[in-house]
Amino acid sequence: MTSGAPKREALPEAGSDEGGLYGLTPALLRAVRDALDRDDETRLRELIAPLHAADLADLIERLRGEERRHLVALAGSLVGGEVLAFIEDDVREAIIRQLDTRDVAAAISDLDTDDAVAVIEDLDPPQQREILDALPDAADRHGVAESLNYPENTAGRLMQREFISLPAFWTVGQTIDFMRESDDLPHDFYEIFVVNPRQEPIGTVPLNSLLRTRRPIRLRDIMQEELHVIPADTDQEEVGFVFDQYDLISAPVVGASGRLIGVITVDDVLDVAREEAEEDIFRLSGVPEADIYRAALQTAGGRFVWLLVNLGTAILASFVIYQFEGTIEQMVALAVLMPIVASMGGNAGTQTLTVAVRAIATKDLTVGTIRRVLGKETIVGLLNGVVFAVLTGGVAAAWYEDPALGYVVGGAMIINMLVAGSFGLIIPVVLWRLRIDPATAAGVLLTTVTDVIGFLAFLGLAGMFLL
Amino acid sequence: MTSGAPKREALPEAGSDEGGLYGLTPALLRAVRDALDRDDETRLRELIAPLHAADLADLIERLRGEERRHLVALAGSLVGGEVLAFIEDDVREAIIRQLDTRDVAAAISDLDTDDAVAVIEDLDPPQQREILDALPDAADRHGVAESLNYPENTAGRLMQREFISLPAFWTVGQTIDFMRESDDLPHDFYEIFVVNPRQEPIGTVPLNSLLRTRRPIRLRDIMQEELHVIPADTDQEEVGFVFDQYDLISAPVVGASGRLIGVITVDDVLDVAREEAEEDIFRLSGVPEADIYRAALQTAGGRFVWLLVNLGTAILASFVIYQFEGTIEQMVALAVLMPIVASMGGNAGTQTLTVAVRAIATKDLTVGTIRRVLGKETIVGLLNGVVFAVLTGGVAAAWYEDPALGYVVGGAMIINMLVAGSFGLIIPVVLWRLRIDPATAAGVLLTTVTDVIGFLAFLGLAGMFLL
Repeated sequence: MTSGAPKREALPEAGSDEGGLYGLTPALLRAVRDALDRDDETRLRELIAPLHAADLADLIERLRGEERRHLVALAGSLVGGEVLAFIEDDVREAIIRQLDTRDVAAAISDLDTDDAVAVIEDLDPPQQREILDALPDAADRHGVAESLNYPENTAGRLMQREFISLPAFWTVGQTIDFMRESDDLPHDFYEIFVVNPRQEPIGTVPLNSLLRTRRPIRLRDIMQEELHVIPADTDQEEVGFVFDQYDLISAPVVGASGRLIGVITVDDVLDVAREEAEEDIFRLSGVPEADIYRAALQTAGGRFVWLLVNLGTAILASFVIYQFEGTIEQMVALAVLMPIVASMGGNAGTQTLTVAVRAIATKDLTVGTIRRVLGKETIVGLLNGVVFAVLTGGVAAAWYEDPALGYVVGGAMIINMLVAGSFGLIIPVVLWRLRIDPATAAGVLLTTVTDVIGFLAFLGLAGMFLL
Repeated sequence: MTSGAPKREALPEAGSDEGGLYGLTPALLRAVRDALDRDDETRLRELIAPLHAADLADLIERLRGEERRHLVALAGSLVGGEVLAFIEDDVREAIIRQLDTRDVAAAISDLDTDDAVAVIEDLDPPQQREILDALPDAADRHGVAESLNYPENTAGRLMQREFISLPAFWTVGQTIDFMRESDDLPHDFYEIFVVNPRQEPIGTVPLNSLLRTRRPIRLRDIMQEELHVIPADTDQEEVGFVFDQYDLISAPVVGASGRLIGVITVDDVLDVAREEAEEDIFRLSGVPEADIYRAALQTAGGRFVWLLVNLGTAILASFVIYQFEGTIEQMVALAVLMPIVASMGGNAGTQTLTVAVRAIATKDLTVGTIRRVLGKETIVGLLNGVVFAVLTGGVAAAWYEDPALGYVVGGAMIINMLVAGSFGLIIPVVLWRLRIDPATAAGVLLTTVTDVIGFLAFLGLAGMFLL
């Protein structure tokens, strides 16, 4: 995607906070706010017209709700399809509600299908239909509607239906002439697909080989036969993996019949890679999704569920302590020291869990390597368990001048670190084999285990050996 | 990068575990292990020769140490430069140690500078020099050495020195003829850079516009003047941001004088995007880096530091409890309930922290928006604080049949959730402004705060109101 207005990016300004590679500077944001305050439409348009669509999208995201509405009211015509495609879901919905259906349809009719789909896929079905009906071009309408038939987060949604496919017997010269004469080419493309008479992809010609080759040569003689064909119902995480694994710039997408129906380009995948990694980060810490642009009430609601689950597990851990009230009553030092054992187990387990979750996502952890990794994590748990048993036991024994207390702390520490290491791996693996996202529930399950085992081992050993 | 051996990727096998888009199947891994066991060199070569370099790299990573050495001994000639470039650092080092310096030099001399640099940048300086000296081509030697002069994780290391730059007065026809005649073009390229007589980039011509345009037209008339010029000392995180923000496929890199010295392509950036997101994930959970292929002792050592810091903070929290030993002695229920308040604060704080860390990385959280986000997070903390105060207070009051205990639990919960929400934001922002990676130390600092405040508020309120 490229913005219409040519401009040369400045080198970093000295002392600039944001680095000079980013078009949206704090100074610009202040100037836009100022223009909005003064209701100065001319100045506002002057400020935002030269911006790259991605920067204008960011600018709109950073404004407060009423400022956004004001900006759209004054300069809505500058908020084109590309800007909408770049804006974050929650904010985009609000803006589309403010715009006229026909304007939205006009804005997205310039986009490739993948971006058009991205703009409207989160809207309610009736609103989607209204915008689709308002699209001026029947082929666009049909293409976008068909892409929406594929499930969310699949290749069918990511692909654009604009691509170039040619038969293998065409020559380089014919191909170049065709491209010079056609005025219906995709906006950006990096390779040409070679198809057989059934329209199945059989090869690909990167544009640079087209340019290196003399006119009479046929496409079949220069095409690469190594194809990474992506079925349209492939999950986007898998698509991201294939692009990353094989360093692809674009890849052909086929329908159920094997016919070429679209192409996915690397810019879409870069977004996916970021989203998927971010999803793991957020799920591991119990945030349902990026919510920085969401209102406080919705944010609190979204995070509530995980906190509720955590409350349940915290109460479970308390229930374990409750069983030992008598023990604690006789020796209150136990209450002082018990959080240390639980906390160390939780942290060691989270380390293993995080490595395991990412290794599953990057296919570094597979059925064939589980046993080896489990063996290793157990050894790691034992090694650090022994080291921290000595450290913590020593501190406890010195603090309360009671060597026996030190041994109990140390014993509980070794047990909990061993449990943490193995369950940090076992929990995500079991979830994965059950086809549940290993990042989602693993953290709660793990800390439940390490809290319960931590308190149980420490208070249990204390009950046996100290009283 | 493309492997030499053309092959058509099969569609997913029914019941296949890995999905059919990935060349390295469990069956293949088993077959390779089997060939190694039987010391069957012919079979081994037959199995790995058709593999994509990235898949062979993964295969080598998944083998045990002695199996790897065996594979390299039998079929080292198939482990070319591209395979080395795809292999994970720890494993690559071991393999390079096993190979002859001259073989390594030959392998990397076919690579673009960015990949050659990636292969040798983690080696010891003497070993680096030895390999560099063995490179057959002087220009390669010079280019790689110069790239290594840039700090790690900068654009200078990511860029390749192979690119095409032409003056603006050249015509499309001249350009195409030049490419057909030259046999020293980069492996893959997606655009041509237009430079002025001082070799500074002034525009870019995507290959597809070259192909759409008639021969007599000059480059200056079709070049895009919107350039995202990247200084060679730019941090790779910033490079990833620019590519993602502006959907770039490649970007020119300039030296201190503004001269074009290299180009960064999106495939390198896709790796960076994954690495950077992964770095945040790992740092947030106290893992120094991906360590799945590292030996147990090194892994334990790498994770030790964070656990040690955590032990320090856990002892600090215990010290807070210690101040209230007398209170707990009088009412042991406090020992049972206190972990709940601390744990809920820790979890709520981690949610905010994670959102903040990612928002800083994606530039969604900036100096201009901090105040608004802080206000929001405080409200979120208050909302969920009140809800969980009621829930937890109710449970505590019912459990111990003591309404006053319920009020104390509830009060402490509200205080700790408020603290968690605001410190979950303040801690990463302060670290960021101090130019410390906000993901690294934020987690420990935050749970220290929520543990200390959780215990202090709960036991303090209990001491005041219950005894």
